[in-house]
Amino acid sequence: MRLTTIRHEGSTRAARVDGDDLVLLDAGDVGALLADGDPRADGPTVPASDLDFAPLITHPGKIVCVGVNYRDHIEEMGREVPPAPTYFAKFREALIGANDDIALPAPSVSTSIDWEAELAIVIGARLRHGNASEAMTAIAGFTVLNDVSVRDYQRRTTQFLAGKTFEGMTPLGPHLVTTDEVGDGSGLAISATVDGVVKQSSNTSELVFNAVDIVQDLSTIITLEPGDVIATGTPGGVGAARTPPEWLTDGAVLRTEISELGACVNTCRLP
Amino acid sequence: MRLTTIRHEGSTRAARVDGDDLVLLDAGDVGALLADGDPRADGPTVPASDLDFAPLITHPGKIVCVGVNYRDHIEEMGREVPPAPTYFAKFREALIGANDDIALPAPSVSTSIDWEAELAIVIGARLRHGNASEAMTAIAGFTVLNDVSVRDYQRRTTQFLAGKTFEGMTPLGPHLVTTDEVGDGSGLAISATVDGVVKQSSNTSELVFNAVDIVQDLSTIITLEPGDVIATGTPGGVGAARTPPEWLTDGAVLRTEISELGACVNTCRLP
Repeated sequence: MRLTTIRHEGSTRAARVDGDDLVLLDAGDVGALLADGDPRADGPTVPASDLDFAPLITHPGKIVCVGVNYRDHIEEMGREVPPAPTYFAKFREALIGANDDIALPAPSVSTSIDWEAELAIVIGARLRHGNASEAMTAIAGFTVLNDVSVRDYQRRTTQFLAGKTFEGMTPLGPHLVTTDEVGDGSGLAISATVDGVVKQSSNTSELVFNAVDIVQDLSTIITLEPGDVIATGTPGGVGAARTPPEWLTDGAVLRTEISELGACVNTCRLP
Repeated sequence: MRLTTIRHEGSTRAARVDGDDLVLLDAGDVGALLADGDPRADGPTVPASDLDFAPLITHPGKIVCVGVNYRDHIEEMGREVPPAPTYFAKFREALIGANDDIALPAPSVSTSIDWEAELAIVIGARLRHGNASEAMTAIAGFTVLNDVSVRDYQRRTTQFLAGKTFEGMTPLGPHLVTTDEVGDGSGLAISATVDGVVKQSSNTSELVFNAVDIVQDLSTIITLEPGDVIATGTPGGVGAARTPPEWLTDGAVLRTEISELGACVNTCRLP
C-alpha cells in the first residue's frame, strides 16, 4: 500500500494510491491516519497526477535522525563505527514536501549546504521496550528523506542539531510504502543527484544499524508513536567530503531516490 | 504573573495564580494558553494548595536544550567554552510534572542517572530572525527544569540525545513566571539538592549564553513558537563530575530550585 499527504482545497489531506487515482481519506496527513484512521477506507478520488505533496507527516511527534550509519560515509567523514546508533533530532519546521523548494539560508548565515539522501522509517504502532519482532511490527513502512545539512552550523559545536533543523530544508515523501511491499527496508538502491549528476549511490543493506535495530533500541529510551519519523543515515558521497567541497546553491535541483519508494525532487532557492 | 498547568477532573488545565487561589483558564495547558488563549481571563477558582502539577507545557512543539553553558560545569566536564550555544533536543515524552516521580530506567539499562538543574525559557510569541530586542519580547517567561541525564547513553556516541530524552525523567514547572516579574532571567539563584544535600548552587548570571542570546540565535535557524521550551544548561556540581561519581537511585528525592521561580521536588522510582 502507498499512502501520501497532499495539499488539497486549502488544507492537507491523507490519501491512498489506487492505480492512476488517489483515494482521499478522512485524515489531515499520514500521521493522523496512522494514529487514528483507516488507510483502507473508501473515499472520493482524484487523479494521481499533478499532485502538490505536503510533508508526508506534517506534525510528527518526533523526528529522530541517525548519523554515521553507512560504512563509506563513516570513512569519508573520518569517524569511527559507533557502538550504538548515533541519535540526534530535527524539528517539524524543517520538513517540506517531496517537490517543494529547499529554503537556503541567506549567504550571510551559511553557504555550506550539503545533501544527505536517507531512508526514513515511519512508525505505525506504539512501541516501548520492544524486541526485534515487535519492532518490525511497529514499523508502518518507509519513505524518502533528505537530511539537507548546514555544515558550518552542524560543526560549530559538538552537537549536530543546529545544522540539521534549519527551517524548510528537509524533503519528506512522496509516499509511505508499507512493509508488506518493502519488508524491513533493506536491499533498496538509494541515490542523490544534483542537477542530474550522481553524488550518492548506495544500498540500504549497507546500513550499520538497520531499521529494526534502530526501532528496537529507541524503544528502550522512549515510547515510539504512530507518525514518528526516523531518518536512518546517509551513505558516502556528501559534498563536505569532496575535494574541493561542493555545496548546494541557488537553483540547484536535488533529486533523492530510493528504489520502490520513489523520489523527492527539490529546487534550492535563496530567500 | 504566574501561570501553571494542573491535572484537574481527568484532564489537564491551565491556570493563573491569584494569591491563595488558582483561576482556571480555558486552555488545556500553558502552551495552548500562550498560543491561543487569554492569561488574564476570568474563570472558576480552586485553592492553590495540594495541586497535582502536570508538565508546565504538556505538548511543546520543540524542546531545545543548551549544553556546556556554565563556566564551572564546562570545567568539571573537561570541555571548552564553545563559540556558539550547543543545542540538542528532548522529546515531550521525557517531561513530567513538578512533583511527579522520576522514572528510573531498569538497572539492566542504566544506573548512571545524573541531575542537571536548569533555567528554562518559555516562548510566548512567534519569532524568526529576531534581534536582541525582539528575542526579549518573544520570551513569555521562565520556569524550572531538571535535565535528568542517563550518562552512559549520553556518552555512548558523540551525540547527547539518547541520554537526554528518556521517558518520564525531566521535571518541568511548577510555574511560568512572566518577564514582567523576572526580566531576562538573569540574577537568579539556582540549585539542586539530593535528599537535602546541596549538589549544585549557582546563579543564572553565570550563563555563558544568556536567554536573549539563545533565543536570538535559535531564531536564525528556525521559527520559535508559543509554548516552545528551551533549557539553558546546568551549572557545576553534577554527579558524573564527582569523585567517585554519584548517581540518583531508587527513593532519592531531587529538589531543583530557582529563586523567584519555585521548585520541582521529585522522587526517583525504579519501575
